[in-house]
Amino acid sequence: MTSARFDVLGIGNAIVDVIARTEDKFLVTHDMRKGTMALIDEERATRIYEAMGPAVEVSGGSAANTVVGVGSFGGRAAFVGKVRDDALGDVFAHDIRAAGVAFETLPAFDGPSTARCYILVTPDGERTMNTYLGAAQDLHPNDIDEEAVKAAAITYLEGYLWDPKHAKSAFVKAAKVAHSASRMVALTLSDSFCVDRWRDEFIDLMRTHTVDLLFANAAELRSLYQTADLDSAVAELRKDARLAVVTMSADGCLVVSGEHVIAVPAAPVDKVVDTTGAGDLFAAGFLQGLARGADHETAAHLGALAASEVIQHIGARPEVPLEQLAAQRGARG
Amino acid sequence: MTSARFDVLGIGNAIVDVIARTEDKFLVTHDMRKGTMALIDEERATRIYEAMGPAVEVSGGSAANTVVGVGSFGGRAAFVGKVRDDALGDVFAHDIRAAGVAFETLPAFDGPSTARCYILVTPDGERTMNTYLGAAQDLHPNDIDEEAVKAAAITYLEGYLWDPKHAKSAFVKAAKVAHSASRMVALTLSDSFCVDRWRDEFIDLMRTHTVDLLFANAAELRSLYQTADLDSAVAELRKDARLAVVTMSADGCLVVSGEHVIAVPAAPVDKVVDTTGAGDLFAAGFLQGLARGADHETAAHLGALAASEVIQHIGARPEVPLEQLAAQRGARG
Repeated sequence: MTSARFDVLGIGNAIVDVIARTEDKFLVTHDMRKGTMALIDEERATRIYEAMGPAVEVSGGSAANTVVGVGSFGGRAAFVGKVRDDALGDVFAHDIRAAGVAFETLPAFDGPSTARCYILVTPDGERTMNTYLGAAQDLHPNDIDEEAVKAAAITYLEGYLWDPKHAKSAFVKAAKVAHSASRMVALTLSDSFCVDRWRDEFIDLMRTHTVDLLFANAAELRSLYQTADLDSAVAELRKDARLAVVTMSADGCLVVSGEHVIAVPAAPVDKVVDTTGAGDLFAAGFLQGLARGADHETAAHLGALAASEVIQHIGARPEVPLEQLAAQRGARG
Repeated sequence: MTSARFDVLGIGNAIVDVIARTEDKFLVTHDMRKGTMALIDEERATRIYEAMGPAVEVSGGSAANTVVGVGSFGGRAAFVGKVRDDALGDVFAHDIRAAGVAFETLPAFDGPSTARCYILVTPDGERTMNTYLGAAQDLHPNDIDEEAVKAAAITYLEGYLWDPKHAKSAFVKAAKVAHSASRMVALTLSDSFCVDRWRDEFIDLMRTHTVDLLFANAAELRSLYQTADLDSAVAELRKDARLAVVTMSADGCLVVSGEHVIAVPAAPVDKVVDTTGAGDLFAAGFLQGLARGADHETAAHLGALAASEVIQHIGARPEVPLEQLAAQRGARG
């Protein structure tokens, strides 16, 4: 294994977030399940957009947010994902490159427009997401840059990739290439309804060692093992995963690795403004820690720190350099 | 004069803001004058965008921000301005309509793309703007909806309209239509360099009574009368303007009307985050007060309140309903 050119290479849906504040009744009226991500078609996208209030556009996408977080920690990051050659595609490409992330995936020159996620933020800071996948549907195994994957200490994949039709095979190809170079492959379960759609395949990814590290929040883990009891879900997870992190919002996280389960508290937060990106940024801190040789507990603290920053403002990407924040708190990746 | 269907109809450049935080040295490197608005061509727009950091896209435009503010105070507002039928044009139209503002101007179906303003926010909260006018160039007298202008208590125009080639005649047409229905016409000087480009014409607009109410900040007023001394500029203004408001940032404002000059303090602010939209939102409060029959001092307090809200967050449009804020402070329009 040669030394890594990238700390983390993320593969995911390339999405621009369209974020608006709303009241809870808007979710009820429009038949949305609070706190979850729903896939929507173009017609429903138009209907939701027409009904929702004034919005802010900001680049998003789960794995994309994570690699931007890695960059913000001073890590070397790369991203693979598909946009269209349109105005929002330009916005996505600009923002991820301006964050210092290598992004070389060719845009689609025809077909559906760049993916958008309509995010409704309720007064409690919770976000409810409606994703129109658009051009992100067309991520293809040919888009996987094998040399870049081999050059990354960790290849990080989002569970959401199981939804677009060719992305799954791109994912599997990337995992094979990474393992051929003795690199680590990580996966986030993304969303409890996503788990519901692809439960058996996700469990299989762990059991076949296609994935070495799993990120899940409590709802996703319960959904994975179809139990209301988190403890028994964690017990199942210990059998299936080499290494896993279970995030539990304000209750911190559990790092689960064969013999050990380590509990790490959440970082303090003044006021939760918008939880969008909390899981993505937790993963950024943990992955960056791991890529630079930190132990699991230190890595989890870095994850908690990054998550605490992103939930205190609108938008899923850090507004201050996480490297600075980590230096101030005495935690180093 | 029949009763007004709109409190305020704004005419201005329809622009999407592209906002990024930056350090002061970026302004120096890219030859920008801090705190001002520069007009840029497409090539420079591309260069600046490539160099600037990750950004947030949010609908802007000076007069557009003002009418959104009027709507936020519970006023009935309308807007006239030109976008292209592209993704950012859709964003602009969605956001202004979602704010409750009537917006019926047809988009351009060919020609340059929707206008963008690249806004660099330095750590002191000051904003430096670079505007690519794009489709906003093509606002034409035919775009003026005469019935809407006649139905508005106040027609509000931005000085920036003097830059696009046909917009000036659209402006003059709107002013004539408004006066034919015994309505009020207001103008903001927009920017000290804009004043520098169009000084004589702006003075002429007051002297010919094409404009009944002028908004200017201290820098713009000094530029208008080419003097470093604000007092002598105000003395000149009293001769030329029927009614004018001079805003002075943290020092509040002066309401200048023939015989009287009233000083009104700024509203308290915890932390200035981004001054973008301060003048626009001051105008919103003042105009809404006037349209609803408030005296000048009360109107100025409403203006100060709206300005204080918008400078405490990123973006030039209010994040909380100004009507609520005004009710909490006991100030009513």
